Amino acid sequence: MNASEFRRRGKEMVDYVANYLEGIEGRQVYPDVEPGYLRPLIPAAAPQEPDTFEDIINDIEKIIMPGVTHWHSPYFFAYFPTASSYPAMLADMLCGAIGCIGFSWAASPACTELETVMMDWLGQMLELPEAFLAGKAGEGGGVIQGSASEATLMALLAARTKVIHQLQAESPELTQAAIMEKLVAYSSDQAHSSVERAGLIGGVKLKAIPSDGNFAMRASALQEALKRDKAAGLIPFFVVATLGTTTCCSFDNLLEVGPICNKEDVWLHIDAAYAGSAFICPEFRHLLNGVEFADSFNFNPHKWLLVNFDCSAMWVKKRADLTGAFRLDPTYLKHSHQDSGKLFRSLKMWFVFRMYGVKGLQSYIRKHVQLSHEFESLVRQDPRFEICAEVTLGLVCFRLKGSNKVNEALLQRINSAKKIHLVPCHLRDKFVLRFAICSRTVESAHVQVAWEHIKEMAADVLQAEME
Amino acid sequence: MNASEFRRRGKEMVDYVANYLEGIEGRQVYPDVEPGYLRPLIPAAAPQEPDTFEDIINDIEKIIMPGVTHWHSPYFFAYFPTASSYPAMLADMLCGAIGCIGFSWAASPACTELETVMMDWLGQMLELPEAFLAGKAGEGGGVIQGSASEATLMALLAARTKVIHQLQAESPELTQAAIMEKLVAYSSDQAHSSVERAGLIGGVKLKAIPSDGNFAMRASALQEALKRDKAAGLIPFFVVATLGTTTCCSFDNLLEVGPICNKEDVWLHIDAAYAGSAFICPEFRHLLNGVEFADSFNFNPHKWLLVNFDCSAMWVKKRADLTGAFRLDPTYLKHSHQDSGKLFRSLKMWFVFRMYGVKGLQSYIRKHVQLSHEFESLVRQDPRFEICAEVTLGLVCFRLKGSNKVNEALLQRINSAKKIHLVPCHLRDKFVLRFAICSRTVESAHVQVAWEHIKEMAADVLQAEME
Repeated sequence: MNASEFRRRGKEMVDYVANYLEGIEGRQVYPDVEPGYLRPLIPAAAPQEPDTFEDIINDIEKIIMPGVTHWHSPYFFAYFPTASSYPAMLADMLCGAIGCIGFSWAASPACTELETVMMDWLGQMLELPEAFLAGKAGEGGGVIQGSASEATLMALLAARTKVIHQLQAESPELTQAAIMEKLVAYSSDQAHSSVERAGLIGGVKLKAIPSDGNFAMRASALQEALKRDKAAGLIPFFVVATLGTTTCCSFDNLLEVGPICNKEDVWLHIDAAYAGSAFICPEFRHLLNGVEFADSFNFNPHKWLLVNFDCSAMWVKKRADLTGAFRLDPTYLKHSHQDSGKLFRSLKMWFVFRMYGVKGLQSYIRKHVQLSHEFESLVRQDPRFEICAEVTLGLVCFRLKGSNKVNEALLQRINSAKKIHLVPCHLRDKFVLRFAICSRTVESAHVQVAWEHIKEMAADVLQAEME
Repeated sequence: MNASEFRRRGKEMVDYVANYLEGIEGRQVYPDVEPGYLRPLIPAAAPQEPDTFEDIINDIEKIIMPGVTHWHSPYFFAYFPTASSYPAMLADMLCGAIGCIGFSWAASPACTELETVMMDWLGQMLELPEAFLAGKAGEGGGVIQGSASEATLMALLAARTKVIHQLQAESPELTQAAIMEKLVAYSSDQAHSSVERAGLIGGVKLKAIPSDGNFAMRASALQEALKRDKAAGLIPFFVVATLGTTTCCSFDNLLEVGPICNKEDVWLHIDAAYAGSAFICPEFRHLLNGVEFADSFNFNPHKWLLVNFDCSAMWVKKRADLTGAFRLDPTYLKHSHQDSGKLFRSLKMWFVFRMYGVKGLQSYIRKHVQLSHEFESLVRQDPRFEICAEVTLGLVCFRLKGSNKVNEALLQRINSAKKIHLVPCHLRDKFVLRFAICSRTVESAHVQVAWEHIKEMAADVLQAEME
């Protein structure tokens, strides 16, 4: 395919993409296929001679689309949002064309520099403490990661390296293994599974701190664990506080947890993967109070800030802690192809921030929060249902008053009907339905339709119960 | 921006991309900017109100392009190639529009299933042993990773988990830390720095095996290290063999190393990041002989197989080893938003394999190899120069006969002139220039121009030497 054919096919693809997104409401949000559906539909091996573009584009509707869960349908209320916006898609096209791998400044200066400046822009939007910004000569700064899981792992490894160096400086006879055996990391029992995974990868113990009645990590439980573990000869070195948990969007108490971490000289990482985007609105910024106690902070613009996947924003107070954990021979790194490079992802941030403006992004967040409160009040008006956790941002956890069994039946009925798509969670011993405002194009009318549908399904389930 | 504006701007962007790539030869391959150039050119904070699209598109030429290293220029001979093709860019547009995160089958069935089938297609192109393919019910299979570094880390962690479980099953009193302290991984002294990094992250020793005169890891050196370490009470558990090293594209001797790993029950991972693409050509497939001894194998279609970044292909003989290393509570994973998900990256493979056909991909590889041999013979004809390592694929390592100083001066002169772009490497104590065939559009004429230019620069350097 040469440039002139790309001009033609690229424009056809732009139309296909626009058609797809304009018409997405008309597609069934969740597919009908069974596992293994695709293999029989395509050849067993790659073709020797080229296929035509027409063949391929036809196969998209015939083979791919029947198996797609439409994440950007306004009837998709599952998981958390994944960002999708036209400005980000335009930036992605440019990013693909430039196709540089920015593993060092020289590999593509614009790539490295725009990223630093965009992370400062975004940090300012969140009113992050000055210490997290690179500015012209700061020690802190931001870097784009692929995911919040990756950011948590990076923070844990940096903290591990730091504490090992400290302890070995004090007692040179200590081996790394002897120290690692005693290291303990902590997060709330509501933290994402990726925190546990980071502990597994890093080869350190991870302990879950029991959360309180609002699913938040509090001072007392953390302090008790630290005291107990230190008495047992262990070495606490890392705490992950979650702002906006995956299960129910609860918030660990940063103003309590932060000072403890500082006093105990324990690295504090904040995982605000979903909720972080909301902090650009002054009325939600208080949820981030206490960030000043943290060593690292992360959230995903690719979730709720209209920057398409992947774009996970991570800041640290001391960049040297992060580079220190992985530094090998710098002259080697300077010249070899660091495969773990990255594309020009900051272009997406630049396009989105400029084409929406801060005010546009704020209204987008506000619209989602308003819709979740609208759904919450619909649920509250129906005495058969209950709300299971405080609704702060765009997630509503709810259930039928009654057994887990009846709620499992309700969810199953909803997801089998495939008119809307939801996923559940467990809050303590309760099976709970999650209603997350996800799509860029979701409006009050969709929420109303969803609620009417849920009520209908609930009536059927309760009817079946009584029979 | 709504769909109709996206239709307009998207088509303008398609033209911008086509213009950029058609005209890339006319742009200076390496930029003139100094570190810190960008920050003064853009506002200190994001705009409150939206900017226009015109403003943004103008800023691309004004602010971004002056700081871009043009990786797809036919005068770019640095690092290794990074894939760029129009079919992959079309697929990326579609991938961005679907915007699903495929962290489980249900999250988007087509995404999971196409990936499995594409990895089988690609595995067949390489004639991988059946054990690596998923087929309809195999234990093996392929998965797309973000980079070869990630694949190495995954393999090391899987091997670490496996050996710890084995040893604890035999001796339940052994702690994880006690085992980890004794674990040793190995790679050649020519392996990429990401192998060392994987060892650091995984918290295990990594030892470099001295390579032979052709920069290859051989049986004797590996055996000696294993024997010595076992005698010292250590536990060898993981070997990385590199096919196509970053420095000089040398090949570890798989047929020697493989049987040793199998006999010693040590996990063998093959890193063929760059060279792997060549194995789709029958005449280069012999370089992969011995893959049957490996537990995992990885290469990057995003380097040399025309699938734009990121697309790193990793196969394992036992998928359970990989999932086993990271499995937590499966019911939780089933329902929670696994942030470490991935986009619909297999669409890029599907588009590229079909629009080029296997034959088209093979001729692309062959063209690059032919151009490197063309450059090699130019160098060999000039008695002032020497070839420093066998030229097998698309990389030529060469230097002026003489001191490192004169070669450093030559490289500096070349990269200051900015007509072509090269990076160096060290082979033992020699400073060497790397000439890598990179661009999709590079032709014999560009190689000739590059060689004439290098000769000119060399003449200047040698002249300056004598003065």
